[in-house]
Amino acid sequence: MKLIRKTLSIIPLFNGLSSEQLDEIGAITVERRYGRGDSIFMEGDAADGFYIVADGQVKIFKTSLEGKEQILHIYGPGNPFGEVPVFSGRRFPANAVALVGSRILFLPRGAFVDLIARHPSLSMNMLGELSMRLREFTVQIENLSLKEVPSRLASYLIYLASEQETANRVTLKISKGQLASLLGTIPETLSRIFAKMTAQNLIRVEGKTIRLLDPLGLEDLAAAGKLAE
Amino acid sequence: MKLIRKTLSIIPLFNGLSSEQLDEIGAITVERRYGRGDSIFMEGDAADGFYIVADGQVKIFKTSLEGKEQILHIYGPGNPFGEVPVFSGRRFPANAVALVGSRILFLPRGAFVDLIARHPSLSMNMLGELSMRLREFTVQIENLSLKEVPSRLASYLIYLASEQETANRVTLKISKGQLASLLGTIPETLSRIFAKMTAQNLIRVEGKTIRLLDPLGLEDLAAAGKLAE
Repeated sequence: MKLIRKTLSIIPLFNGLSSEQLDEIGAITVERRYGRGDSIFMEGDAADGFYIVADGQVKIFKTSLEGKEQILHIYGPGNPFGEVPVFSGRRFPANAVALVGSRILFLPRGAFVDLIARHPSLSMNMLGELSMRLREFTVQIENLSLKEVPSRLASYLIYLASEQETANRVTLKISKGQLASLLGTIPETLSRIFAKMTAQNLIRVEGKTIRLLDPLGLEDLAAAGKLAE
Repeated sequence: MKLIRKTLSIIPLFNGLSSEQLDEIGAITVERRYGRGDSIFMEGDAADGFYIVADGQVKIFKTSLEGKEQILHIYGPGNPFGEVPVFSGRRFPANAVALVGSRILFLPRGAFVDLIARHPSLSMNMLGELSMRLREFTVQIENLSLKEVPSRLASYLIYLASEQETANRVTLKISKGQLASLLGTIPETLSRIFAKMTAQNLIRVEGKTIRLLDPLGLEDLAAAGKLAE
């Protein structure tokens, strides 16, 4: 219980809430543990609450009938997920699995909706969170429909650099296969693009670390959509 | 002013609000008129409020540097749009133009956020609205990355039939060119698919009306991703 309360206090969704309000949330929160590869929920499952990653990493994805997978998000500590059916539809619109052993907080729907109705700052935070997700999806749809894969990769590296607050070096926290799926391509194509971008001195790959050698060149590539021949 | 107040009372976002609350919203609402093709806002513009379609039709879209367009939504009477920057980021993540002469309500950011903070039912409605958008984007990303175009068209026709509450007949409210862009393809490809689906007795096209001759066949196509040869 003490650990839950401590985790809640550092979750961005709950920024600006008073200590008493965090206690109220702590009182309805349940902690669950998942092993690597464990399913947390499947698309179409009835949703009786939503989740927050306390420790670990979670993949949110859709699959086609043929088993092809499109990753929608990879979430880490502090990120809420599965909150859409709390407010609309009542069923999960995608699948969630733990990518590593994970400690996950579960917040039951009814009690949480009741808290939101009583605490305007919580509802404003939740509106900000959902709006940010909509913004991310807008970018992802643009990437899938309007950009070639090299340009998607350049956009993603720039996004990581700003998220990790490192100007010229990013750390990949997901496998190359997962990155390929996130960008809507296959690992073989992604490897070829990494090789080509390396040959053009745009990046240098050092294991999980990627050095951004030419940030301006990457921004051009992200905007233009095509890699020079 | 009376017309604005009447329009507000039939907007789903404001369902369940009292007459006094609607008056408060009416007091901050501004009406604007746009001609066919007029820009309402552009991606990157600073946002000082959001919009609701009173009459007419609005297209929300992204464009690539080469001018290729991806439609994100087509909105009609009662639909809010441009609300993401009210809660996150402060800038519009996409473009909006009027497809026909339109009467649009504008709700200024500060006054609306103040109303939301005071009225939990309004904030719950807004959370429901944003969640529904996230659900739609999830489907759109799935369509773009996991499905072939015939399957996307079948999904869209089934979606329209459920939205228009007509089991075996739907009315297209957008042009074929716009439909092609919404489905992430070009008009020529879309025409070929319409012809092929007609030949297979899945649909019959009668101008803007499309008869769904074989709803189960369409559902198979939507799920499977491929049209039989």
